[in-house]
Amino acid sequence: MGLFSKDIQTMDDLYLHMLEDIYYAEQQIEKALPKMIEKASSSALKAAFESHLQETKGHLERLEEVFALLNKDVKGATCPAIDGIIKETNEISKEISDEKVLDAALAAAAQAVEYYEMTRYGTLIAWSKEMGRTDCAQILQQTLEEEQAADQKLTRIAEERLNKAA
Amino acid sequence: MGLFSKDIQTMDDLYLHMLEDIYYAEQQIEKALPKMIEKASSSALKAAFESHLQETKGHLERLEEVFALLNKDVKGATCPAIDGIIKETNEISKEISDEKVLDAALAAAAQAVEYYEMTRYGTLIAWSKEMGRTDCAQILQQTLEEEQAADQKLTRIAEERLNKAA
Repeated sequence: MGLFSKDIQTMDDLYLHMLEDIYYAEQQIEKALPKMIEKASSSALKAAFESHLQETKGHLERLEEVFALLNKDVKGATCPAIDGIIKETNEISKEISDEKVLDAALAAAAQAVEYYEMTRYGTLIAWSKEMGRTDCAQILQQTLEEEQAADQKLTRIAEERLNKAA
Repeated sequence: MGLFSKDIQTMDDLYLHMLEDIYYAEQQIEKALPKMIEKASSSALKAAFESHLQETKGHLERLEEVFALLNKDVKGATCPAIDGIIKETNEISKEISDEKVLDAALAAAAQAVEYYEMTRYGTLIAWSKEMGRTDCAQILQQTLEEEQAADQKLTRIAEERLNKAA
């Protein structure tokens, strides 16, 4: 939620603001993932990022559906949280030369991104139900489940790396 | 992880960097929570934040134990991610005058903070095990469980608000 956010008077305003926040976040993730795919060495990690990039495009479309259901314009609101997470990923990546260490850092960064999305979608789903908008809740729930699955996939990749190392 | 992070050559370096990152994050959370307690209206939410503030002090002590186990100096590394999450919380808070809407925004912000901590502790625990440091993993696991419990408490508070409203 950005510096230039308008006044928030009601839960509807807060909801819309959070929707704009996660829309901006998904847009930034869509831009960041191709760079992460390029930097990753492990084919499993590259594939996980590629699949998440495709999913991210779907998440943006679902958010556009929610904006439409609420008769609101589709727009993003600057989200310092996701900007911070992505900035941190870029900074740390520059510091690492070893492929395996870089892969570990990239996987951790991707999980931080997914956790951020999970908390925001979780909040939006709760608020949707609170507002009686089960139609919005159902759409957002599909994305939340994809985020959870993406996180679990990264955990499995990390565990496989660990088992190979053992 | 900050702009002035040193070169990261090995998993040990990456681990230490992540430890410094979460140490800084916990310090920022310790500073942010008293302001959130002040702004919250619901007594349940105030109590949840107060209890999390006490826990945060314990999390800092546990991180100091881990630094000691690794024979490293205790220090924090600027973490743009937590800075972004806290900045977002401050900005949105300023925009809201209604008590209930502000409480909903504060609870969502606290959950975003906890999710950030959960992902970082989860990564550190996995890396501790990978490095054969089950002593560090066990200490960090206690904090992870407290973060999970704090998140669940906030979810329950939100659900109770919803039930009252229904």
